[in-house]
Amino acid sequence: QPKFDKIFNKIDELKPSFIDRLAKAIEIPAVSGDESLRPMVVKKSEYLVQELESLGFTDIQVKKLGTQPPPVENPNLQLPPVILSRYGNDPAKKTVLVYGHYDVQPAALSDGWASEPFKLVVDEEKQLMRGRGSTDDTGPLLGWLNVVQAHKEAGIDFPVNLITCFEGMEESGSLGLEKLIAEEASNYFKTTDAVCISDNYWLGTKKPVLTYGLRGCNYYQIIIQGPAADLHSGVFGGVIAEPMVDLIKVMGTLVDSNGKILIEGVDEMVAPLTEKESQLYEKIDFSVDDLNAASGSNTSLYQKKEDILMHRWRYPSLSLHGVEGAFYGPGAKTVIPAKVSGKFSIRTVPDIDSEKLTKLVVDHCNNAFKALNSPNKCYAELIHDGNYWVSNPYNASFTAAAKATKDVYGVDPDFTREGGSIPITLTFEEELKTSVLLLPMGRGDDGAHSINEKLDISNFMGGMKTMAAYLHYYAESPEN
Amino acid sequence: QPKFDKIFNKIDELKPSFIDRLAKAIEIPAVSGDESLRPMVVKKSEYLVQELESLGFTDIQVKKLGTQPPPVENPNLQLPPVILSRYGNDPAKKTVLVYGHYDVQPAALSDGWASEPFKLVVDEEKQLMRGRGSTDDTGPLLGWLNVVQAHKEAGIDFPVNLITCFEGMEESGSLGLEKLIAEEASNYFKTTDAVCISDNYWLGTKKPVLTYGLRGCNYYQIIIQGPAADLHSGVFGGVIAEPMVDLIKVMGTLVDSNGKILIEGVDEMVAPLTEKESQLYEKIDFSVDDLNAASGSNTSLYQKKEDILMHRWRYPSLSLHGVEGAFYGPGAKTVIPAKVSGKFSIRTVPDIDSEKLTKLVVDHCNNAFKALNSPNKCYAELIHDGNYWVSNPYNASFTAAAKATKDVYGVDPDFTREGGSIPITLTFEEELKTSVLLLPMGRGDDGAHSINEKLDISNFMGGMKTMAAYLHYYAESPEN
Ligand SMILES: [Zn+2]
Ligand SMILES: [Zn+2]
Ligand SMILES: [Zn+2]
Ligand SMILES: [Zn+2]
Repeated sequence: QPKFDKIFNKIDELKPSFIDRLAKAIEIPAVSGDESLRPMVVKKSEYLVQELESLGFTDIQVKKLGTQPPPVENPNLQLPPVILSRYGNDPAKKTVLVYGHYDVQPAALSDGWASEPFKLVVDEEKQLMRGRGSTDDTGPLLGWLNVVQAHKEAGIDFPVNLITCFEGMEESGSLGLEKLIAEEASNYFKTTDAVCISDNYWLGTKKPVLTYGLRGCNYYQIIIQGPAADLHSGVFGGVIAEPMVDLIKVMGTLVDSNGKILIEGVDEMVAPLTEKESQLYEKIDFSVDDLNAASGSNTSLYQKKEDILMHRWRYPSLSLHGVEGAFYGPGAKTVIPAKVSGKFSIRTVPDIDSEKLTKLVVDHCNNAFKALNSPNKCYAELIHDGNYWVSNPYNASFTAAAKATKDVYGVDPDFTREGGSIPITLTFEEELKTSVLLLPMGRGDDGAHSINEKLDISNFMGGMKTMAAYLHYYAESPEN
Repeated sequence: QPKFDKIFNKIDELKPSFIDRLAKAIEIPAVSGDESLRPMVVKKSEYLVQELESLGFTDIQVKKLGTQPPPVENPNLQLPPVILSRYGNDPAKKTVLVYGHYDVQPAALSDGWASEPFKLVVDEEKQLMRGRGSTDDTGPLLGWLNVVQAHKEAGIDFPVNLITCFEGMEESGSLGLEKLIAEEASNYFKTTDAVCISDNYWLGTKKPVLTYGLRGCNYYQIIIQGPAADLHSGVFGGVIAEPMVDLIKVMGTLVDSNGKILIEGVDEMVAPLTEKESQLYEKIDFSVDDLNAASGSNTSLYQKKEDILMHRWRYPSLSLHGVEGAFYGPGAKTVIPAKVSGKFSIRTVPDIDSEKLTKLVVDHCNNAFKALNSPNKCYAELIHDGNYWVSNPYNASFTAAAKATKDVYGVDPDFTREGGSIPITLTFEEELKTSVLLLPMGRGDDGAHSINEKLDISNFMGGMKTMAAYLHYYAESPEN
């Protein structure tokens, strides 16, 4: 599109310096889940502040979040800071808040990486950049900085006021962030018109997507308590009611092998499928082969694309995760565990009410246990919940992002949802009372939390161009 | 009984030196399961050899068993030796082989012990000796040496030829022992007429017992394999057949909450209860209160003494031990495990055939899995088995031990079986083609594998007197 020629060309021209900026960031092993590397997370925040300063961002605030709550080795461990900053503060312009995280997942060469994970390697043949954080989320985060730089150097007025909210604890539960967002909603974030998060991925590897929905997650445990301590199965087998037997029976009543949830009343809460929504799935570039490739198996419950996508995105699911308190090692141990806790979670979707769901789950477990006539004790409880999120994919922000995608990639994006949750999405929406757009940069096969995490150079470049064009289109749109 | 006055008096007289001998042994932390303490296990074997030498035992052979097979930290870790020795070698006398183990379970003051576990504490008020190994099995093992000493010092001819077989690896699977017994069956052990093992306990705390049966144990796992790697339940929940769901369903078909085994054909293999056997249980000193005290709960499946004892001793039982490969930690982890292995075992009794049982189990699991119509893969297998053992409680050895018990304690012993297995019992019986007697010294509440392991002084003294009288009665008995 001639409209963005100048800025797109500048982005292309600055490619070497953008890769260089990313390489410098990747070199800092900012693993938030490793206490001993906490100084590195802080160091990476300092690197970002330095880059923001040199690009002319203003009102830079390094927000301390206090001490990390237990469990921690070091009781005085400080949480990494959240970096707030602005680029532009023109009341005539719209304000877009961009969120990203500078911490990363753990990585070690010995895990099977093809090269040192904390050294960005540019594979010229495959045209990709490999390194921990390349796609999750350092590459996309720096994308926003790069877009600012490109505008400056091209002499183009920045179309919106930009606010950054960069955290360093996302891979470890975003501790402290929710509170900060609530506090800054009427302060630093007050003028925000829209939030954009670039921290997820295309569904596949070829077609860009915009993401307008996420499932929630209610996590439960069923605790069965019997004897006072673990017993030997030789001495007590056959004469004691074994908690593990009761637990397996109760867990067996939750879901069937075809994925159908057997808890009464859950399906009834799911919003019915409309004709309009139904048509959304037909267009999406996806097949059962993609699912099989991702799982490395032929264990899909459905063969039709639409069924798979709907069961990933808009229907609830129940997964059995494991058992705490029982024998879990290799080999053979003849223990009768005294107290076992079965862990399972339900992915939630519109219009499931979390509290009502929990009541159904707890009642179901209690009834299933009661039917066993066991002298043991059973207790079912919610461990945590996070609500689902669904946005309007036809609002101003999504419309702008869709136009931008078309300009950059030449195709209309697929509108996708995700099966997992990004809890901060809902927090931004609720606290700031604005729409949130999920604008992924990387591909579905980037290996965000695996070995050999990568970001294709074409996605890096295309992603930044999409960010730039999105900001322009959103700035021009009549509504907020 | 005036018959044994002289030897019983000598045993009483030597009490201080017997306690001293035990205290010296207990001071050596011979924990076979802790590689770093292996030199201590060896040191304890040297202490025993020294004691055997000083008492006049002959032909002392310290049998090396070679390197401990993996998994081990140190690939050159040597197994502790088996100590063979003789006291007497008179062809006119019967020969009794006594087995014991000098290794112990781990123990640390920080586990909650009332005193240093590797220091024998004599509690004069409670008239007991506390320390790791006091009852399992250093106390009973040294009992045989003490009995020899008492005969020597009382000037009484020893009634039998004694052979010792003392191992240092019992608490860690008796590695190497089975092979040694097979090798020595026609060599060192050739003249053995009877085997006596003092390494179990009274059923309760008041009445002496002789043990004539042990259940066997067949340990199984059901492996369900689905995706190539663990998956995230947000992304894959609802679209993938989860191995954990299939496993829970299959495990749920094995046994019910009342302890009934649901595998077709197992109950049919159990030897029917005869009138004669049925009467054995009535006399035994036991009640549901004893079981509840032992389990620290009211989770008994039966209220009647006879039901409890029969289900512990003469009926099979199936216990679910745990799941390998699933989430097992505290908290919440949203994983779909790729490959899970359910562990369970069946305690076997006469006339269950191990191979036939395994076929029934594997067929049952395969059928239960097939009924699920799952795309995952299922594989059920035996991990290990050890056969049950039942002896004739009216043979010469048991008859001698019963008379001895009556002489010492003034009551007829209860004839008990045990729910657990002592695999070496069967090995001795099969390899040496002799009867085996289980002659316990300690009480049911000794805490063999727990904190504050103890041996009551009255059991120590009574146990040694019983050993001595047993050897005399057995020597006199017309048959072998
Ligand atoms: Zn991320
Ligand atoms: Zn991540
Ligand atoms: Zn023992
Ligand atoms: Zn033991």
